Amino acid sequence: MTFSGLPVSEPADAAKFAKFQTLIDKYNHDKWAQMERFDPEFYRLCQERIPSAAELDSEPIDARLFVTKPGLLSDSEREIVNELTIDDLLRRQLSRELTAEQIARAYIKSAIVAQFATNCVMQFLIPSALKRAKELDEYLRVHGVLMGPMHGVPISLKEQMGYEGQPTTASYVSLIENVVKRSTVSNQIFYKMGAVYHARTSQPQTIMQLDTWNNITGRTRNPCCTRLSPGGSSGGESAMVAMHGSALGIGSDIGGSVRCPAAFTNLFGLKPTTKRLSSMNGVSGGKGQESIPSTEGPIARSIEELEHYMNVYVNQGKPWTYDPNSLPIPWDTAASAGPRPRIGVLFSDNLVTPYPAIKRAMTQIAKRLESSFDIVDLSDAWFTEQEMLSIYRTNISLYTADGNRSQLELLLPSGEPLLPLTEHFLNFGGGKELSIYENRKLNVLRDAARLAIFEKFFSREAPASLQLDFILSPANVAPAEIPGQSKYWGYTSLWNLTDYPNVVFPTTYKQDPQQDILISANSLKENEFEKMVWYKQDGTTIRYNPTAYTAAPVALQLTGMRFQDEKIVSAVKKISHILGITRR
Amino acid sequence: MTFSGLPVSEPADAAKFAKFQTLIDKYNHDKWAQMERFDPEFYRLCQERIPSAAELDSEPIDARLFVTKPGLLSDSEREIVNELTIDDLLRRQLSRELTAEQIARAYIKSAIVAQFATNCVMQFLIPSALKRAKELDEYLRVHGVLMGPMHGVPISLKEQMGYEGQPTTASYVSLIENVVKRSTVSNQIFYKMGAVYHARTSQPQTIMQLDTWNNITGRTRNPCCTRLSPGGSSGGESAMVAMHGSALGIGSDIGGSVRCPAAFTNLFGLKPTTKRLSSMNGVSGGKGQESIPSTEGPIARSIEELEHYMNVYVNQGKPWTYDPNSLPIPWDTAASAGPRPRIGVLFSDNLVTPYPAIKRAMTQIAKRLESSFDIVDLSDAWFTEQEMLSIYRTNISLYTADGNRSQLELLLPSGEPLLPLTEHFLNFGGGKELSIYENRKLNVLRDAARLAIFEKFFSREAPASLQLDFILSPANVAPAEIPGQSKYWGYTSLWNLTDYPNVVFPTTYKQDPQQDILISANSLKENEFEKMVWYKQDGTTIRYNPTAYTAAPVALQLTGMRFQDEKIVSAVKKISHILGITRR
Repeated sequence: MTFSGLPVSEPADAAKFAKFQTLIDKYNHDKWAQMERFDPEFYRLCQERIPSAAELDSEPIDARLFVTKPGLLSDSEREIVNELTIDDLLRRQLSRELTAEQIARAYIKSAIVAQFATNCVMQFLIPSALKRAKELDEYLRVHGVLMGPMHGVPISLKEQMGYEGQPTTASYVSLIENVVKRSTVSNQIFYKMGAVYHARTSQPQTIMQLDTWNNITGRTRNPCCTRLSPGGSSGGESAMVAMHGSALGIGSDIGGSVRCPAAFTNLFGLKPTTKRLSSMNGVSGGKGQESIPSTEGPIARSIEELEHYMNVYVNQGKPWTYDPNSLPIPWDTAASAGPRPRIGVLFSDNLVTPYPAIKRAMTQIAKRLESSFDIVDLSDAWFTEQEMLSIYRTNISLYTADGNRSQLELLLPSGEPLLPLTEHFLNFGGGKELSIYENRKLNVLRDAARLAIFEKFFSREAPASLQLDFILSPANVAPAEIPGQSKYWGYTSLWNLTDYPNVVFPTTYKQDPQQDILISANSLKENEFEKMVWYKQDGTTIRYNPTAYTAAPVALQLTGMRFQDEKIVSAVKKISHILGITRR
Repeated sequence: MTFSGLPVSEPADAAKFAKFQTLIDKYNHDKWAQMERFDPEFYRLCQERIPSAAELDSEPIDARLFVTKPGLLSDSEREIVNELTIDDLLRRQLSRELTAEQIARAYIKSAIVAQFATNCVMQFLIPSALKRAKELDEYLRVHGVLMGPMHGVPISLKEQMGYEGQPTTASYVSLIENVVKRSTVSNQIFYKMGAVYHARTSQPQTIMQLDTWNNITGRTRNPCCTRLSPGGSSGGESAMVAMHGSALGIGSDIGGSVRCPAAFTNLFGLKPTTKRLSSMNGVSGGKGQESIPSTEGPIARSIEELEHYMNVYVNQGKPWTYDPNSLPIPWDTAASAGPRPRIGVLFSDNLVTPYPAIKRAMTQIAKRLESSFDIVDLSDAWFTEQEMLSIYRTNISLYTADGNRSQLELLLPSGEPLLPLTEHFLNFGGGKELSIYENRKLNVLRDAARLAIFEKFFSREAPASLQLDFILSPANVAPAEIPGQSKYWGYTSLWNLTDYPNVVFPTTYKQDPQQDILISANSLKENEFEKMVWYKQDGTTIRYNPTAYTAAPVALQLTGMRFQDEKIVSAVKKISHILGITRR
């Protein structure tokens, strides 16, 4: 299967890249071969029924229907992947109504559909997943108990996560034969709890894009609307989970990489406070960079399943018994947002104006939440445009402070072409290599921003009228973006810079081309980032086109104090209830 | 009072420095004036009875006797500062047997003696301490309860810790007029609990020496033997606490700066896992450097008082409600080392051979602990000399990775001379400025060392015979050092690099010039650090002279897993009991 994506620049070194092309072809061939071998009949059915790549790339197709509607999966398979929660899966196995193998087979089918429709898979692990499922069934038969709270649950893994004995590329072509010795701690933890790993999913080149496009597997599509981006960098995960190709996804987030894809595909995503989950044995270009640490985080179809992930991972998995960098802080299952929590609403970050659908949804949602929350408009209390400029420049400069040497070390050996959003990212700090002295000064600015948020809004020193429990803000400047267009990271990356935890949650709102029109360009700001988002490259023509975003879901982001991840999850439950947001 | 120390090099810029000399004189004059004003009679008595600076610098005088024996302090004052624990002080105030003012006056006297004998004070806060003590007495009279668990307890503060409204120099001459707006979080926490602050103590130039000598107040002496070093960088604190000039000391540690001074002055010192205590609002040249984070830590006269510090600070003070970088991990008062914990004994780090007194003490102590602990000799399991060379070079290179620009920025404006151990420190990484890329690579090596220690000795993956609860090692390569000679940081700094917590505790052992002789230079290693420690600059003549260390106490260091600070404290209690180590 070929992929017809956006125009890709020439390889940086065509001769080098040509040598790797054979390896890439082999890598991808193995994936399609696994799919076909699993069930040749089903494979052919998918080929027949699922539109071509060209069609999927150009039309606003809701690919989720291939899984939720009859046609490809049987009734019982559709029940497994669409209806049953993780809790249901565990109970039905324990009562012998379902086997792990049945569950695995159903999810492998939906994952195959997901791959056909969204191109979200880097590597399938079908034979080992089936073997594993049979072992789990045997385990239950012999012991009469489940192996653990993920028994038989198909979990997909962002490919950058080390997988023992398998190549782990992190989407760098140069790493296509990088077979690693150690699985991630998360993989080990969930494995011990009975998880089944059937698929490793795509991430963009450098893993530093809010989109998912790389030179090994191409571009991943958004299940809600295939011509749009699934977000990134964990866009393979978001596409897979939104397609019901796995019951849970494990992403990672250093600037929005769990939250943006969750938002774009109408799912729940958590960026926990860093070091609550382990990132050990992941592969990336960010090794040793700790000004803005990365964290793993779940992508889930319901807030309850997201909570299950965190609860069992932390309390039973105890990542600190594997990884001395993990914090031994239990997941507080009794945490509550309180009877009437106070939410500060940040309609705009004062730097880049969100697209109309975001504003519309937020305004209406803030209104609807008034029944159960104290709602405070943060427009005046927030940082000024000038302050935000300084904070955002600090933020993006830190990502590229080493002059991209760590990234180029992984990119150059293969001669692979730089994709447009890779070039955008590599240029974050103007391509300038900073000194360690300058890096330290930026760290001080980062800490000042963290403290300012704390003292303005969360601490007991904050003005009484502003002592918040949570901040509600856009998850992104746009609803699901057009491929290649996610350039402003600020709505998510601010919280990586300052390391506050947050949950992105779906809403019932979507882009409406009739309502979501730009009223006047006069209301836009003059700063470079506003221009980058709202204008075409000429700097004068408005880029925003309401119909281009048709069917794009609007998600919001709820932020709380550091280490109060549990409280945020509790509040999102309450919000979901009020807004009627059911399991995806 | 003048100080006759070691030879100081010429000012880097004599003209600049001359301008600051007036400010320095004024700064010091204020201190002596406060001392005299407090009690002119007592001041004159101290002048008469305490030997001259020249004599203190050259003789092995036990200065603690000026406080513990009759002569300067009255019987009741001596009872207060020598006999009464913090617990006693609280109880006697509550029962109205003692007032906070009486306690403050007694401790101010012993602090004055401490200053005469050891030159440990940067700044006295006598008038405000007396005012505070009276307010506390009034508080108790009105409310009938203590303000908190530090009510009336005189605590000394390492001067680098920001103190609202006071100059905070961190021993940089250029900062002599740097009046700060915010006190440290620790200062705020203990203040709310009723602490009395009467003195801010000395630290060395750059705060990066295991000794205490700066261009504002000169050199600080060791109370146990005044011609020796009190350690550093928290050497003002260790001298003050050892002199019973305060009930508790607050130090900070980035390479041994709490533990080395505690060891050299026969006290207890804790370097907690970083971020359990707040370091907010401290002044240093390390701002924004986070490859090896600094931490505050207590210096105490008993392990029980050290525990009291941690317990009330963390559990009642809740530093995370002031500082978003602090971890909300409670101090587990129920933590126990278990019935028969296993201690791995590291007689040498395989890089630099400890001096004979250390080895003698450790051998005997390990034997004595066998009654209650499983003792495992780590000689073979530890890192090799080559591995340690790599780890130690990573360690010290990280301190100076910015080419010392952050330090020079604070040193150069005053033209102050560089002291010998400052030059030694600035040369740690060969004076070389690293790139951010190189810094990241060193961070990766650091993480590998952290993980190796974890997996070799602490994790459930460790070989069964090596699954340790604790590692017992020297606190320093030497017992209390000769001023200017503490050049090897490895025994403490390894644990900063890898961020494992540890407690340094006193033993009943001291240097014995008869026993502690070098048997043969042939047993020494060839590496540069061994030579630096054992040889004179010519590289062939042995520097070690057993009589030079007469009266120097030997302390040891107990290390445990990250975040198991409580368990280490519990084990040190048990060890103290076995070894008969009573309150200092």
